[in-house]
Amino acid sequence: MPDLHASRRDALRTVLNESGVDALLVTDLLNVRYLTGFTGSNAALLVHGAGEDRTVFCTDGRYTTQAAAEVPDLERVIERESAQALLARAAGDAAAYRRTGFESQHVSVEAHDAYTRVAEGVELTRAPGLVERLRLVKDETEIEALRMACAAADRALAGLLEHGGLRAGRTERDVARDLENRMLDHGSSGPSFDTIVAAGPNSAIPHHRPADRPLRSGDLVKLDFGATVDGYHSDMTRTVVLGRPAGWQEDLYELVRRAQETGLEAALAGQAVADVDRAARHVIEHAGHGDAFSHGLGHGVGLEVHEAPRLAKNVAGTLAVGMTVTVEPGVYLAGRGGVRIEDTLVVRDADPELLTLSSKELVVV
Amino acid sequence: MPDLHASRRDALRTVLNESGVDALLVTDLLNVRYLTGFTGSNAALLVHGAGEDRTVFCTDGRYTTQAAAEVPDLERVIERESAQALLARAAGDAAAYRRTGFESQHVSVEAHDAYTRVAEGVELTRAPGLVERLRLVKDETEIEALRMACAAADRALAGLLEHGGLRAGRTERDVARDLENRMLDHGSSGPSFDTIVAAGPNSAIPHHRPADRPLRSGDLVKLDFGATVDGYHSDMTRTVVLGRPAGWQEDLYELVRRAQETGLEAALAGQAVADVDRAARHVIEHAGHGDAFSHGLGHGVGLEVHEAPRLAKNVAGTLAVGMTVTVEPGVYLAGRGGVRIEDTLVVRDADPELLTLSSKELVVV
Repeated sequence: MPDLHASRRDALRTVLNESGVDALLVTDLLNVRYLTGFTGSNAALLVHGAGEDRTVFCTDGRYTTQAAAEVPDLERVIERESAQALLARAAGDAAAYRRTGFESQHVSVEAHDAYTRVAEGVELTRAPGLVERLRLVKDETEIEALRMACAAADRALAGLLEHGGLRAGRTERDVARDLENRMLDHGSSGPSFDTIVAAGPNSAIPHHRPADRPLRSGDLVKLDFGATVDGYHSDMTRTVVLGRPAGWQEDLYELVRRAQETGLEAALAGQAVADVDRAARHVIEHAGHGDAFSHGLGHGVGLEVHEAPRLAKNVAGTLAVGMTVTVEPGVYLAGRGGVRIEDTLVVRDADPELLTLSSKELVVV
Repeated sequence: MPDLHASRRDALRTVLNESGVDALLVTDLLNVRYLTGFTGSNAALLVHGAGEDRTVFCTDGRYTTQAAAEVPDLERVIERESAQALLARAAGDAAAYRRTGFESQHVSVEAHDAYTRVAEGVELTRAPGLVERLRLVKDETEIEALRMACAAADRALAGLLEHGGLRAGRTERDVARDLENRMLDHGSSGPSFDTIVAAGPNSAIPHHRPADRPLRSGDLVKLDFGATVDGYHSDMTRTVVLGRPAGWQEDLYELVRRAQETGLEAALAGQAVADVDRAARHVIEHAGHGDAFSHGLGHGVGLEVHEAPRLAKNVAGTLAVGMTVTVEPGVYLAGRGGVRIEDTLVVRDADPELLTLSSKELVVV
């Protein structure tokens, strides 16, 4: 979709002109993908503020054919050291690239040295996070990919439950693999992160890695997983109970469910991210479990499974229409079990649009 | 295995003392894993040159339990901004951490600024690649993990062939998924990179992504895939023919096979990496296909699927006993098809030890 990427580069040009740089050297591969559609593992892009004429893409010889297919609308250079090749090009036309920004949030101290050596006559200027600023608010193409990724995860969970995939005796690892295969069946190109299946006391470990522990009757089972579609990630957590739930499990679930609902209601355009966190956190603190909610409320989701904005204490920033974020409170009682409930949503003018649609009633299997 | 990690930290201390720094702030997560065994997604480690007493590990609240299990032998701090937390600690004991190295090959220009602000009284010194230098030569624990990862890939391919998994009508994507599932059956925790299955003309694209193209009789089918065991990656490519091979396919295969054999024979301790590349490349150039071998001969494999040393033209460096590298020449004829043959091996005193053991005779299915 050349038009899509060209229009994103146009949007970036507005930012470049505001930032007072002539051009931006884009080296973060996800930013390159966002601006060009290129999906290979080595590339750089030099976006000139004046237009497409001096905007050049570079990758190495492994990707000559792929780059021609994915980036048909830009001049392409084939060089292994892509960033340096583009900076050498800029140095050869230094009047036009006099102030060239680089992604200082991403470029290492050593790489910066290498860039400086090759960019003679060009003033390399820190320009952190300019493309990320555009990526904060998703366009409809992105939201559609996220919607499909979330749907793949929803369908995988529904299939798992329907086919008795959560039963005593199965290991955490079995369940994780089953979920991942079901997501593939529903259009995912791969898990969006290491699937978490955490049963019994393991559910109290926020980021438990599935192991050979079998599920047992009486377990809380926490499932945190996501699909990937066109490079966009989904992220959802559900917690279920095997067999009849104990009173403390029902109470814990209900507490987290209320906190999550409160967080969803607070996730409105114009809200400070810290306030969204605080709204959900207050519910858990009020119940005396504040210390057991040991992480932030949520995070942005897109080309990265964790990206800006972060919804947490002491974080600046405000939600805007078109941001896609998770809301995922959790309470973890060491040695006993934990509950986390997480949705991915789009911030809208009024109520958020949920992209993950699996039920949040306590599922007893 | 605390002893293993403690002995790696000891080896690092020797390097630190030689480098004239009092301590090293390790922020690359794979380096943290190598030195501690920690497998979470946020951590930093401050290794003091004088011993374990002032060596401190930091991660965030999601990993409190996991860190206690994986890093029982070090003092642990729980803070989200792990690197800054450790540098603040160093600043509080500045005499002992006067010259503290940081991983300048990995730390971004912006992160470096943030580190400088918090490390008052500490001279932050560039110390690029110190842990990577240790990681170049694998210990027996690492080689055993690589051996298991390579065996999982070998078995997956054998199973695929035995069960008729390569047949006309199946899509590239079907075959990729089948291979990945078979690797999981044989102990892989996940593919070590995006599996490549490239059929017919797609085999001429070095890094083709599997799509819905069905395999057809007469296709060259290139399979490049790997397993992961304990965080260590395998990497193997085989190219097969569906149906009776054409003369040009047999010739192309034989050429690449000879180049690969030549590369394996050259991969000896003491050889310059550029010479190993040249030996294999010469075979292909001599046959008039030099331009169609568009990438380097190989790369190191370990905690990263692509790591040092790189076997390529114009690269400095020499192979040493215990390095694990790939040897993977390829010839790609645009629009027709390509052949790549790749093994992962351990450099030894005499002949290399192959870790990938699948046959390199031309397989006709």
